[in-house]
Amino acid sequence: MKAAEQIAAFVSSFGAERLTPALVQTCGRALLDTYAVAIAGKDEPASRLALRYARRSGAAMPPWQAGYWATGELLPLELAALCNGVAGHVLDYDDVSAPLRGHPSIALLPALVGLAEAMDASGAEFVCAYVAGFEVICKLSKAMALRHYARGWHSTASIGTLAAAAACARLLRLDARRTCHAIGLGVAQAAGTRAHFGTHAKSFQAGQSNAAGLRAALLASEGFDAASGALDAAFGYMDLYANGESLAPELATLGQAPLELLGSGIEVKKYPLCYATHRAIDGLLDLRQAHALRLADVAAVRIRASAGALTPLIHARPQTGLEARFSMQYAVAAALLDGQVGLASFTDEAVRRPQAQAFFAQVQTDDSAGGPAFPRWTEIDIALRGGRRLQRRVDLLRGSAQAPLSLDELRLKVRDCLAWGRVDADVDGLVAGALALDRMPMRQWRAAAALVPT
Amino acid sequence: MKAAEQIAAFVSSFGAERLTPALVQTCGRALLDTYAVAIAGKDEPASRLALRYARRSGAAMPPWQAGYWATGELLPLELAALCNGVAGHVLDYDDVSAPLRGHPSIALLPALVGLAEAMDASGAEFVCAYVAGFEVICKLSKAMALRHYARGWHSTASIGTLAAAAACARLLRLDARRTCHAIGLGVAQAAGTRAHFGTHAKSFQAGQSNAAGLRAALLASEGFDAASGALDAAFGYMDLYANGESLAPELATLGQAPLELLGSGIEVKKYPLCYATHRAIDGLLDLRQAHALRLADVAAVRIRASAGALTPLIHARPQTGLEARFSMQYAVAAALLDGQVGLASFTDEAVRRPQAQAFFAQVQTDDSAGGPAFPRWTEIDIALRGGRRLQRRVDLLRGSAQAPLSLDELRLKVRDCLAWGRVDADVDGLVAGALALDRMPMRQWRAAAALVPT
Repeated sequence: MKAAEQIAAFVSSFGAERLTPALVQTCGRALLDTYAVAIAGKDEPASRLALRYARRSGAAMPPWQAGYWATGELLPLELAALCNGVAGHVLDYDDVSAPLRGHPSIALLPALVGLAEAMDASGAEFVCAYVAGFEVICKLSKAMALRHYARGWHSTASIGTLAAAAACARLLRLDARRTCHAIGLGVAQAAGTRAHFGTHAKSFQAGQSNAAGLRAALLASEGFDAASGALDAAFGYMDLYANGESLAPELATLGQAPLELLGSGIEVKKYPLCYATHRAIDGLLDLRQAHALRLADVAAVRIRASAGALTPLIHARPQTGLEARFSMQYAVAAALLDGQVGLASFTDEAVRRPQAQAFFAQVQTDDSAGGPAFPRWTEIDIALRGGRRLQRRVDLLRGSAQAPLSLDELRLKVRDCLAWGRVDADVDGLVAGALALDRMPMRQWRAAAALVPT
Repeated sequence: MKAAEQIAAFVSSFGAERLTPALVQTCGRALLDTYAVAIAGKDEPASRLALRYARRSGAAMPPWQAGYWATGELLPLELAALCNGVAGHVLDYDDVSAPLRGHPSIALLPALVGLAEAMDASGAEFVCAYVAGFEVICKLSKAMALRHYARGWHSTASIGTLAAAAACARLLRLDARRTCHAIGLGVAQAAGTRAHFGTHAKSFQAGQSNAAGLRAALLASEGFDAASGALDAAFGYMDLYANGESLAPELATLGQAPLELLGSGIEVKKYPLCYATHRAIDGLLDLRQAHALRLADVAAVRIRASAGALTPLIHARPQTGLEARFSMQYAVAAALLDGQVGLASFTDEAVRRPQAQAFFAQVQTDDSAGGPAFPRWTEIDIALRGGRRLQRRVDLLRGSAQAPLSLDELRLKVRDCLAWGRVDADVDGLVAGALALDRMPMRQWRAAAALVPT
């Protein structure tokens, strides 16, 4: 059996009888997080421009139409997925998968949510499609993403397209043969380069991979065919996008327990800045709360971290929100000043607050101690003005698969994202619904996710 | 200057003052040929399925809408380009570029004709965009297509997308900066694998590259940006899709005389079957006409060709139209029986004609004589029943850049294609218009290209 046929056999037969509460809730949390992040990103230039383009490109028409999350307006389905994908990725605040070296939910959910809405699919069907798509992302990634990403591919898009095609085929209830064609038509559109990081084209690639996955599955549903060897035959995906690896070992475990959604899991970003600051912020917020700390109490902060872990943090004296996203100095100041590190901490104005700017000189960082780079850790050493010292070591990252956010933390992120987008919603209802997706039609959840301008 | 910036500078400044009659007529001939071939392909399964998908995917809406050539119905612009591209490539009867190792006009014209129609652009603007796009295709191809294609990329799509993006940017009159973004957004979507040859996905890739080129240019026209190093910076197109070549030497000649449209030129396929038969058919039709030959007069035919030139012709006793497309035996029989080798020669019924089937045993082929593979040649040796022999050697392929079709030959192909599509049109008006595109709005030519069912 060819690789695409193996994947198609798994995807097309993945049924609701395999859903567990853990799978449903992990999917629901990913949906909440992705949705909220897309609302927060709606006013970024890339999001606004993509939406303007989409509005001019065609009129929504049943059956294949869906809503743009931030406004609810109906767009042609693929364009809705494109725009929601751009808005959901533009802040780089969407969830992460280590094997993918990228963002799994933004590669799947704009396509799947839109398609489920268009089809009036049940939540259980939607969860099945997401779980199956996530499984495909991880198996492909474990086989070939390491060198693929290192060479320069933007794996969120260049691998995500294939998984989106497979997941959409599942939601459309295509049989194994047509699912195989959908995967092949995904290969026919797989693209995305890291050369675009730092431009609008990066979030375009994430959105476009959803649009491409939908196109692949919808064409396959019409009977359009493709080569069953699109992944592993001569001249196929592995020849062109991989570096000599074989898919076979990973595909042999496709669908086996634990499913990748639980086994590999998802990492949720709690703070809208570079990951390299997150352990420090976790510890600082804990210490701040435990000791009712204020910035004025603190004489100096020393952050030590595992070897090389702080390399991306290149701005010791940030002046803009963008620079502050790569600054441990600002991360420490914001955590101590604001008591939370949310989107509002990253306006240029917030970064230029005199208290924050004056504090940067008190923060020292050091990741030169040697030792292994992984597993990562961060040590915080706070000298208080009275001479007292507070210390904390952080190993486990909150929001990682091993330490999921509490529901309160997730709600906090959702509220912060909505507030940043200047909209409100029934967040409690939204969260409750997302955790029980298997018991409602997706249109019901989408209705619960309706936004009110604030 | 980065490669995409160099290309953008050339494309965005290529103006009508550089058009010569030869450029206009070469473009017009390519338009005629591509249009006719797309009409001939309209009833193939891939074309019908793509159209059905497009009709369900969104409603056409100004400004970005255009007609499906075979029916005239309006579709959203990108979907029109996708469908016209599929129909124009599905028979593999569209024109060819040697440097591209693929089909240049089908990579450009579905996007450009649709965009010109939507914009109500002048024919001169349209020709400029085509000439500039062709220049980009050839320069990129000369730099990197040889190994790119050999590795498995479907260069018509995987290189064509970039040229389509650049050409559409030219037609939209984007400045150099936005043209550079369009090229980058083309890179963000560049795909296409030869693994799909023999399936619907092959013609999908040709159509999709037009849709992707349009998306790139339209997003760039909204102000959406991309990396200027998308082609030649780290992790860019050359790192991912090429094999260590440099673009610099070819780009240094970008836009220099002779422009690639005249220098490299276009090869038009006169006969709807494998290229390896074309020299033999040229010679046989000449001999048939000169000597008023009929199949019944012929005792045997021997075809000799340059080393390896007949390798693709794997069917000595074809039973179907598909097999006959790779059969010298059928090519000889059809040329002598029909006096022309058109689409009607390739129905299963035509192939199974007893006269043709009985003749296959009289045809011998030989490409084992040794010597260089290029330049190619074919020798025909006919033994007549009376004992007389007719011989002819064919070096130059009619329809190649060096020996363009006469206008009568081109008209013959257009009429054959329209008849195959069971439609009629004012072919004389169509041809006259195509040769004078620089003196009419494109909508006028499109109106002249309106079809009447027969």
